[in-house]
Amino acid sequence: MEGDPTLQLRVFDLNCWAIRYLSKRRQERVQLIGDMLRREGFDLVLLQEVWSERDYSDLKVKLGGCYPFSHYFRSGVIGSGLCVFSRFPILDTLLYQYSLNGYPYMLQHGDWFCGKSVGLVVVKISGIIFNVYPLSPPASCQLHAEYCREKDAYLPHRLVQAWELAQFIRHTSKAADVVVLGGDLNMHPEDVGIRLLRGWTGLRDAFAEATRFEGCEDGCTLVPSNCFTVNSELLPFPLGIRIDYILYKAVSSFTVKCEELKTTTGTAPGMDIPFSDHEAVMATLHIRRQGQAAGDALGTAEPTLADVVTEARTEVGVGLRAARGQRYSAGRMAVLALLLLLLQAAAALGALAGLAAGQPFPKLSFSLLAFLALGVLLLATGLHLFHTMEVKMLQGTEEQMRMALRALQERP
Amino acid sequence: MEGDPTLQLRVFDLNCWAIRYLSKRRQERVQLIGDMLRREGFDLVLLQEVWSERDYSDLKVKLGGCYPFSHYFRSGVIGSGLCVFSRFPILDTLLYQYSLNGYPYMLQHGDWFCGKSVGLVVVKISGIIFNVYPLSPPASCQLHAEYCREKDAYLPHRLVQAWELAQFIRHTSKAADVVVLGGDLNMHPEDVGIRLLRGWTGLRDAFAEATRFEGCEDGCTLVPSNCFTVNSELLPFPLGIRIDYILYKAVSSFTVKCEELKTTTGTAPGMDIPFSDHEAVMATLHIRRQGQAAGDALGTAEPTLADVVTEARTEVGVGLRAARGQRYSAGRMAVLALLLLLLQAAAALGALAGLAAGQPFPKLSFSLLAFLALGVLLLATGLHLFHTMEVKMLQGTEEQMRMALRALQERP
Repeated sequence: MEGDPTLQLRVFDLNCWAIRYLSKRRQERVQLIGDMLRREGFDLVLLQEVWSERDYSDLKVKLGGCYPFSHYFRSGVIGSGLCVFSRFPILDTLLYQYSLNGYPYMLQHGDWFCGKSVGLVVVKISGIIFNVYPLSPPASCQLHAEYCREKDAYLPHRLVQAWELAQFIRHTSKAADVVVLGGDLNMHPEDVGIRLLRGWTGLRDAFAEATRFEGCEDGCTLVPSNCFTVNSELLPFPLGIRIDYILYKAVSSFTVKCEELKTTTGTAPGMDIPFSDHEAVMATLHIRRQGQAAGDALGTAEPTLADVVTEARTEVGVGLRAARGQRYSAGRMAVLALLLLLLQAAAALGALAGLAAGQPFPKLSFSLLAFLALGVLLLATGLHLFHTMEVKMLQGTEEQMRMALRALQERP
Repeated sequence: MEGDPTLQLRVFDLNCWAIRYLSKRRQERVQLIGDMLRREGFDLVLLQEVWSERDYSDLKVKLGGCYPFSHYFRSGVIGSGLCVFSRFPILDTLLYQYSLNGYPYMLQHGDWFCGKSVGLVVVKISGIIFNVYPLSPPASCQLHAEYCREKDAYLPHRLVQAWELAQFIRHTSKAADVVVLGGDLNMHPEDVGIRLLRGWTGLRDAFAEATRFEGCEDGCTLVPSNCFTVNSELLPFPLGIRIDYILYKAVSSFTVKCEELKTTTGTAPGMDIPFSDHEAVMATLHIRRQGQAAGDALGTAEPTLADVVTEARTEVGVGLRAARGQRYSAGRMAVLALLLLLLQAAAALGALAGLAAGQPFPKLSFSLLAFLALGVLLLATGLHLFHTMEVKMLQGTEEQMRMALRALQERP
């Protein structure tokens, strides 16, 4: 920094869609990604959905020369899918798992099993401390289809995650000079979750701030022209949607500017397939030391921020009421199943004791009914416990948001 | 601070053992605790195992006058059991859940269901930022009985938790002036987990540092004379054990000293029962602003710290091998159950198709066997998934520890 007053940092971010056995032409694509990363020589590479540790090891071997430092975040049954490659030493890491993450019974979405989380990697470059946050995509839902956006049961979960993410960043980034976040946020730029995250942390959107832009129209990262995209999901958005972001801010006496933002477009050079079903986002950041400390400014003017927090809190409240309803239904179902079981037990005992005249029910249907009741009892109890946890987390977030609002209002 | 150069802070910490329906004379004791807290007027009160939100609400109402600020941390199915009462405004909160927490099938220990976690409460007193960390007790095991300490299957889990706790504190406390941690750490003062936590964060033990001490011999917080203690568990330790701690450190240009440490002894004043099955710990800290910054000094000399991390890493490695073995056994069991099911299905199909001469097995035992195989299959699959997660987390921690060791060795 002494000789050159400006540090240039090239950041790469991609949701790799590398799910073993499920993602199309996975191995080929991971190889293409590796080749491109080696060729381009970024400073920081944030990859998501690298679900197979084998793929990470292969990339690590291939990229060892130009990115000597790397980290793979492990969590959940399947893993977090997050990894980071860096040209500069990684000093420290931490992983934070969101407390709410979709529903275990929504098997088709699979969110609950993935240990969705946010990582933290501390990197020191030319004496500047960078806190780099790679994220796994938050609770999904077929976000892209309009019908779902109107009745989006996952919205409260995504808001809890956006809030926890913002809180985690605020609490861990206080000693950093620069914060960089990259990932698939699974939200449109104007969605309340993004506004909450940006407002509450003061992070800026590289796409909105970039001096130059090159890539898909409007910075979209999920585009219909990508051959792996399910086009029916993008019908309401003929241009595509922008859900992969690079966000940044300077914490202490530094300023950060995004000089250039790029997205990949179309197929990988010389190939017939793109790198992933998402487009990659590449930002060139210029970091400059400035005379006085910038302070921990919040991104949005505070009255606006209060509006955003209020909006988010209302949505979390809606989710809370829904979760309470589901907890009640599951509890009632469990009680009914238990009553049925007890009734059957009484009848069976009665029959055994010879109180009833003969066998009142055919044996087979009697035991089938008992098994059914037992199954329902177990399932309903599990659901009841799950929704109890959901209620607690939504309540906790709502309370934290209320506290934040009070603090915002009390500020002079 | 301007007029008075020293700030005195009185901190109270107690594991309340307030489990609904299970803890003896719970309501009475919670009331006693509330009365005592109101009478004594501490600055900060950290309570654990307040599992019923009702108990928290009652305390909040009772203590509203002298402790106008409070927070209850919600997590897991049952909750975190953590709450904080403060005479000074709480600016912000955060909760971090440990990634590993005992075994779901160890129902009698119940760890897995409690959402064991560490909270963070930011409090500002006279312009000094305090990061206060209340903890729920980490993965237990009948820690107190010697036979268990020798074959302690939970040790790797406790070490993962101690490591995550230390990492969480390091990453979130960088902008704080003073760090205070209070809780039941479920470890003896010389256990590797405590040495790891203290060494890696630089936290000091209020008992060891206190100028004056008053209370149970050796600062013990689980003592045989407490009528709620299960004495057979304390047999190898006739004096009791010290597992509840108040730890602290100054981060920036402050010094902290522990003037006085006390524990409760015997029954609550005028009553025939103590406050809990644990003794409370009460520390009086003196905080003084000093000329120059103290720096983020690590607590232990670095070669010693490297030894502690190496020791912890070895133990985590032992846990990793055990977890891999259990994952393998569970997987093999699942495959065997699946094979048995397939065999039965083939036999049943054969019988249906008339290939077999008559019915080879009695119907009832045949279906019972099928149900048994199905049950074993489900159970073994669940166990396999759980141990897969365990392996990932232990691996991740071992790798982080390796990285920390490298950093320690590379330091000039």
